[in-house]
Amino acid sequence: MPEFSSSAAPPAPPLQVAEWLNTPAPLALAALRGRVVVLHAFQMLCPGCLSHGLPQAERVHRVFRNEGVSVIGLHTVFEHHDVMGPDALRVFMHEYRWSFPVGIDQPAQGTGLPRTMQAYHLDGTPSLVLIDRRGHIRLQHLGHIDDLRLGGLIGRLLAEPLPPPDHSEG
Amino acid sequence: MPEFSSSAAPPAPPLQVAEWLNTPAPLALAALRGRVVVLHAFQMLCPGCLSHGLPQAERVHRVFRNEGVSVIGLHTVFEHHDVMGPDALRVFMHEYRWSFPVGIDQPAQGTGLPRTMQAYHLDGTPSLVLIDRRGHIRLQHLGHIDDLRLGGLIGRLLAEPLPPPDHSEG
Amino acid sequence: MPEFSSSAAPPAPPLQVAEWLNTPAPLALAALRGRVVVLHAFQMLCPGCLSHGLPQAERVHRVFRNEGVSVIGLHTVFEHHDVMGPDALRVFMHEYRWSFPVGIDQPAQGTGLPRTMQAYHLDGTPSLVLIDRRGHIRLQHLGHIDDLRLGGLIGRLLAEPLPPPDHSEG
Amino acid sequence: MPEFSSSAAPPAPPLQVAEWLNTPAPLALAALRGRVVVLHAFQMLCPGCLSHGLPQAERVHRVFRNEGVSVIGLHTVFEHHDVMGPDALRVFMHEYRWSFPVGIDQPAQGTGLPRTMQAYHLDGTPSLVLIDRRGHIRLQHLGHIDDLRLGGLIGRLLAEPLPPPDHSEG
Repeated sequence: MPEFSSSAAPPAPPLQVAEWLNTPAPLALAALRGRVVVLHAFQMLCPGCLSHGLPQAERVHRVFRNEGVSVIGLHTVFEHHDVMGPDALRVFMHEYRWSFPVGIDQPAQGTGLPRTMQAYHLDGTPSLVLIDRRGHIRLQHLGHIDDLRLGGLIGRLLAEPLPPPDHSEG
Repeated sequence: MPEFSSSAAPPAPPLQVAEWLNTPAPLALAALRGRVVVLHAFQMLCPGCLSHGLPQAERVHRVFRNEGVSVIGLHTVFEHHDVMGPDALRVFMHEYRWSFPVGIDQPAQGTGLPRTMQAYHLDGTPSLVLIDRRGHIRLQHLGHIDDLRLGGLIGRLLAEPLPPPDHSEG
Repeated sequence: MPEFSSSAAPPAPPLQVAEWLNTPAPLALAALRGRVVVLHAFQMLCPGCLSHGLPQAERVHRVFRNEGVSVIGLHTVFEHHDVMGPDALRVFMHEYRWSFPVGIDQPAQGTGLPRTMQAYHLDGTPSLVLIDRRGHIRLQHLGHIDDLRLGGLIGRLLAEPLPPPDHSEG
Repeated sequence: MPEFSSSAAPPAPPLQVAEWLNTPAPLALAALRGRVVVLHAFQMLCPGCLSHGLPQAERVHRVFRNEGVSVIGLHTVFEHHDVMGPDALRVFMHEYRWSFPVGIDQPAQGTGLPRTMQAYHLDGTPSLVLIDRRGHIRLQHLGHIDDLRLGGLIGRLLAEPLPPPDHSEG
């Protein structure tokens, strides 16, 4: 079973997003303190994302959004950039009717890896990042994770105490 | 989503079992204080039990048994008693290779409903009962519950504090 | 892909059935000349029969029964006889609502293998036997066969010419 | 069940393809006389194509290609043309490893509907067209068709006699 880091969990770097879809306003992790954040990094033409990761993100969104969990999709294009641009992503989002917010990870100069993907040291897609109510990274997982395990991890994070009021930025 | 009862959760009645399978010694809820117990009530010829409930119980057993969760199957025969007796159940357990412990709910005189099923007021099969680390019933659910929700509930129960040492019997 | 025998296909032995379920009258292969017969040999407590063979037999029955195909289930109990008797099978048929006719293969004296299973030299369950419109065995298959292949075989058998009128018994 | 047209089946119009993928040389229906052709019209960002149609086309290709069946994918883009161009399709084909030949339906001037899609009067994607060994259209089906039915139709077409030698073009 994927293991939590606990005491020494690093703070989650801010999301660097070029454009947001499926949300009336940009999202910031700092504004989500107190909620568990399930960050799902994907590419629209990645088979494992479409068969497993994205449907699971949708299920988590539907089951847990009213219980203190925020699901955020992150389009971390690191290959085939020319055919997975914002226009293609918008069609993809429209056709598949994903209902959770999705941010387009900001491209970086001189490298194929977008900025948030770099900041989180993600190795590929689909990747799942669990961020606790204090804004710390508690799990990063590349590939498949089953619903029972993921539910168990989310349940445990939801049971942790609320953080004290936070006046920093993120 | 199925809801926990929390403060006013009733204590789980003792299991009344005629015979245990898949365990070297009889199980008692009182001896499982400190662990989360997932009680799965089934009948071997109930289609929903076989397609959904029993495979889910097996998954919970495999994922969580080393993390403080005990899965217990309970064969609550309330119809067709003559073809779901202990011999038939033993063949069923052998053929399907379920790996969690199963108790045969003790038949009651003068009624088709076995004793534990009566004590828990179970309405049918498959039924799922979640018992917390203090031995209280936190959820009873008849029918299908998906893995993500169930994982979330188990995760939250696992995050609750250990009960104080208990000297009562159960 | 499972292969047809064609020219030298042996005639299908008569079914030796102790009792019929799901049919107003006993079935005889001889009376089904002109139809393709899909014979599905199963045991009610065989996991592969329940997860694969029986649902497939049900699908074949629903898709092809009005197009010249007869599905027949055959309960070929060769182990655990005491818990898979006629009463147990009736409960099983009722609970799962299989809609095709099922015959109970006639027990044989002094051996665990029932008579039709012996006559067809079946090696276990689930087994599928395809019998052509002339009453000859064209395929015997132990285990899993996928729907696309099975559909293809049935389609080819349905395309074969009708046999001449047959006055023999079977 | 989808029904064959039989006697009055119209000849299949020639494929009008701008570019072929997954094949060393362009395909022509006229050169496939004697084989059953399964034409699968899809768009790479159509959810039903990805969840059902394309995996089924792949299965048909694997099961029947050595038995006289040719599977041909046809990328019939009729919406969102700018994000489903040849470059995007090549990435899609590469990522999903479809192994059957795919032709890009030739765009038509002044309309969103490509030429072959128009010639076959296809109503959307996924669409399945079954072409018999004489080159006639025997089935057109928009949407989902299950493997058992499709296998049955292919089996029947494979059982039809070979056409006489054909000297026309197509």
